[in-house]
Amino acid sequence: MKPQDRKVAEGLLFTDQYHLTSAQLYHRLGLHERRVQFDYFFRRYPNYGDHQAGFCVFAGFEWLYDWMTGARAGEREIELLRAQTSNSGSRLFDDDFLDWLRDEGDFSGITIDAVLEGRVVHPHVPIAVVSGPLAMTQILETPLLNHLNYQTLIATKAARIHAAGRGRPLLEFGLRRAPDRGALAGTRAALIGGADYSSNVGVSHLLGFQPKGTHAHGLVQVFMAMGEGEIGAFRAFAEAYPDDCLLLVDTVDTLGSGVPNAIRVFEELRRKGHRPLGIRLDSGDLAYLAIRSAAMLDAAGFPDVAITLSSGLDELAIWQILTQIEEESPRYGVDPDHLINRLMYGVGTRLVTSGSDNLDGVFKAVAMELDGEWKPLLKVSESPAKTVNPGDKRVWRVYDKRETATADVLTRGSEDISRAPLLELHHPVRKDLRRTLGREDISRVEPLLVATIRDGERAFDPPTIEEMRELRRRDLSHLDPGVKRLVNPHVYHVSLSRELWELKERLVGEAKTNERATQAS
Amino acid sequence: MKPQDRKVAEGLLFTDQYHLTSAQLYHRLGLHERRVQFDYFFRRYPNYGDHQAGFCVFAGFEWLYDWMTGARAGEREIELLRAQTSNSGSRLFDDDFLDWLRDEGDFSGITIDAVLEGRVVHPHVPIAVVSGPLAMTQILETPLLNHLNYQTLIATKAARIHAAGRGRPLLEFGLRRAPDRGALAGTRAALIGGADYSSNVGVSHLLGFQPKGTHAHGLVQVFMAMGEGEIGAFRAFAEAYPDDCLLLVDTVDTLGSGVPNAIRVFEELRRKGHRPLGIRLDSGDLAYLAIRSAAMLDAAGFPDVAITLSSGLDELAIWQILTQIEEESPRYGVDPDHLINRLMYGVGTRLVTSGSDNLDGVFKAVAMELDGEWKPLLKVSESPAKTVNPGDKRVWRVYDKRETATADVLTRGSEDISRAPLLELHHPVRKDLRRTLGREDISRVEPLLVATIRDGERAFDPPTIEEMRELRRRDLSHLDPGVKRLVNPHVYHVSLSRELWELKERLVGEAKTNERATQAS
Repeated sequence: MKPQDRKVAEGLLFTDQYHLTSAQLYHRLGLHERRVQFDYFFRRYPNYGDHQAGFCVFAGFEWLYDWMTGARAGEREIELLRAQTSNSGSRLFDDDFLDWLRDEGDFSGITIDAVLEGRVVHPHVPIAVVSGPLAMTQILETPLLNHLNYQTLIATKAARIHAAGRGRPLLEFGLRRAPDRGALAGTRAALIGGADYSSNVGVSHLLGFQPKGTHAHGLVQVFMAMGEGEIGAFRAFAEAYPDDCLLLVDTVDTLGSGVPNAIRVFEELRRKGHRPLGIRLDSGDLAYLAIRSAAMLDAAGFPDVAITLSSGLDELAIWQILTQIEEESPRYGVDPDHLINRLMYGVGTRLVTSGSDNLDGVFKAVAMELDGEWKPLLKVSESPAKTVNPGDKRVWRVYDKRETATADVLTRGSEDISRAPLLELHHPVRKDLRRTLGREDISRVEPLLVATIRDGERAFDPPTIEEMRELRRRDLSHLDPGVKRLVNPHVYHVSLSRELWELKERLVGEAKTNERATQAS
Repeated sequence: MKPQDRKVAEGLLFTDQYHLTSAQLYHRLGLHERRVQFDYFFRRYPNYGDHQAGFCVFAGFEWLYDWMTGARAGEREIELLRAQTSNSGSRLFDDDFLDWLRDEGDFSGITIDAVLEGRVVHPHVPIAVVSGPLAMTQILETPLLNHLNYQTLIATKAARIHAAGRGRPLLEFGLRRAPDRGALAGTRAALIGGADYSSNVGVSHLLGFQPKGTHAHGLVQVFMAMGEGEIGAFRAFAEAYPDDCLLLVDTVDTLGSGVPNAIRVFEELRRKGHRPLGIRLDSGDLAYLAIRSAAMLDAAGFPDVAITLSSGLDELAIWQILTQIEEESPRYGVDPDHLINRLMYGVGTRLVTSGSDNLDGVFKAVAMELDGEWKPLLKVSESPAKTVNPGDKRVWRVYDKRETATADVLTRGSEDISRAPLLELHHPVRKDLRRTLGREDISRVEPLLVATIRDGERAFDPPTIEEMRELRRRDLSHLDPGVKRLVNPHVYHVSLSRELWELKERLVGEAKTNERATQAS
């Protein structure tokens, strides 16, 4: 795609067709400026087939805001829409609408309260609450979902992989398997969620991180073809990068050639006063090869150089590798803890694609201004879990006496539960499930939503990526270990306050009655 | 991300760190202009967990070429690299290299032979063969993989979903779950692979397709809140779009309210001389609801309006829905074939994410110029399937007497098997597997690679998207039905010619001997 076309495709028209047809309809009826409120939330944690997340890490908001500030319908956009035809052959969009879109189709009327990026989030909790004029709020739906769903998915995966690696350095290597330009967002989300560095050069620099890498198999192949062998490649690399010497040892034969050659070069480096960084294993039985390599490196007097693992890794693969290392190391005279503490991980495909699932985040209308007042909106559904929680709301995180987050609570916008003597918590779907927390069970109640955007303008000081990482670390430290389990985690409680529960019950009843009445009329 | 930053992150630095460090090393050693040849191929079909593809549809090449023509290291890029430090704190990239990168770091030396987009492709077959100067060819590795892997993955998924829907219209609805800006490539690939249209407004227009859509649940919610009910929303939509009236009927109660209301509005449209398009079902038991909706529409005299299904669809979900329709329709007096022939499909998440897997496409060095001659390169591996097929090669598709593609054959670059009296075909990995095809078994032998890029310049007239779709349809029509099966497909044969097989065997032996010699020395 040519750059000038890409600019158009990534601008205001980076949305779904039905939002534009709906916007034109609202414009014709004079409803386009009517204020509405939409919630962004997801319904279930990512499910990776044989395992499922017990928490998510929110990411993507800052890039959504950047998109909103730049998206306008210029002459090229208007021209494309003008050429669009209905099935009758006539124009689909009329001049009135297109003039309005060109002159007033921006996000200056949009206000957003949102959770900060890097924070742990859970299903059914509004993560971003958007209010604004009807037409532009609807046009925003798809780009908002696009920006927030993918980065939250990847940040979550990064947090899981980082945890599986017991906090050892995690390098994001996924650009080659990443979804086209989505790679940039993938790298950013990985850095927020748990990756320490990325191999992706440009975006790393622009986010303030030094890109990291080793060398390619191609380097060894080239030197072999020139008759200088693997050792020739290693020596050339060490010569060029004496203080960054991380050697890929699996091009020919990991234990028979790669590790012995690396050790020879490390010895040469040491004699010259440099500290070799480590080796990388990229194929075969990574646990076994790591143990054997560690034994060889230890014996050669390199007990501290890193062993970087890559190839097909994700949280379960890492977990299995560490389990195998713990079992098998002693047989080769290697201390498993010492080995595990010298490991690093290069994770590509399953980090930037999340391995399997998507985040099912949705954007649902919850309120509309009518006669100067906010009226709660409902979308009932045949599956009760899909019925939205109506109206303007607040979101609170309740911590117990051990400072563990024990529930996220949705209340009506008018409620303040921060000092309530008693909290009655209702399951969002199941009538029979509720519990009561007394003040003596609670250490604090924290509001989660922050006023981020007011009438299209930034209303807060956004955290840096490093601050987002700190928010993530802090939230994870307050999460029950059972909720963080990689497989079959405990279910974190997300509850409705009694007032919100009662409102929802009442509206569901009314909706069914009204619709039957309208239908019968 | 700000537009000026995005431009940098998507330019020449849209690559992996280790390519730049390798390039600097080659530059220092004067090896950077040495000509090399790399193959792009994948090793296995996408595996969706409970099912696996038996073919892929190639896509992404044109956008790769667009990237190559625009990617240069300007002042901003050089400045970022100049600031990068080694572990010793000194600069990682020196001025010599950065000057060279700024002045000569482009793809004008790159030549590519490739399969045309839209064509059916198989594992181990070189889909793009890249030759060029060593340093820039390595820098190209990651962006090439990024562009080709994702689009091929999505085009393949689209072909499968299209087949499951028996060729009925397939609409790509995935922008909201697509990976950030990767959505554009996803839409393009879906259109090449099997989607008829997309809801993604901008990119559809720029690719020459009218974007398509229905209306949102929000529209019905808004009219309900205003006391005008679902029927009010439907009427307003029909009024605005009388010839494009496709109504979403599941906001309240599909059979109790949505379909009856849609029928009333369709009757009103018909009286005004318009032809209603159809309804969309977006939740619940889609097969059952389609049958019941069809019965109601038939009874009301609308046997031809479309029934669009969406929500969680992929090839298996569609297959199950059609099976259920075939079984259950007669019970409601609905002809299953008639119903199936009025269906359309809106597929989002599982199309633009492929549902689960990635394409494991790789870029491997196969030859290098030494003393004016191409020398085949090898990367041996402990898993034989990962040992590359060495040297300059040609790729041929062999059709049998029924015009069914029976094998893709890799030969040495010097071989021409188009008129060979006898073909000896070797399994690429297993020594014991080979077969012989006589001329009497063969209708034709087609070379698959096209000279696409010569020294950075386009050397062919690229197919339009519509022509790519036609290539896909044609290739699929020549594919054995067993290979196209959605679950557990037959394995398509990819073979090596006897000459190539012998070369590979010889080089594997030599590599092991040489490396032992180098290691012992």
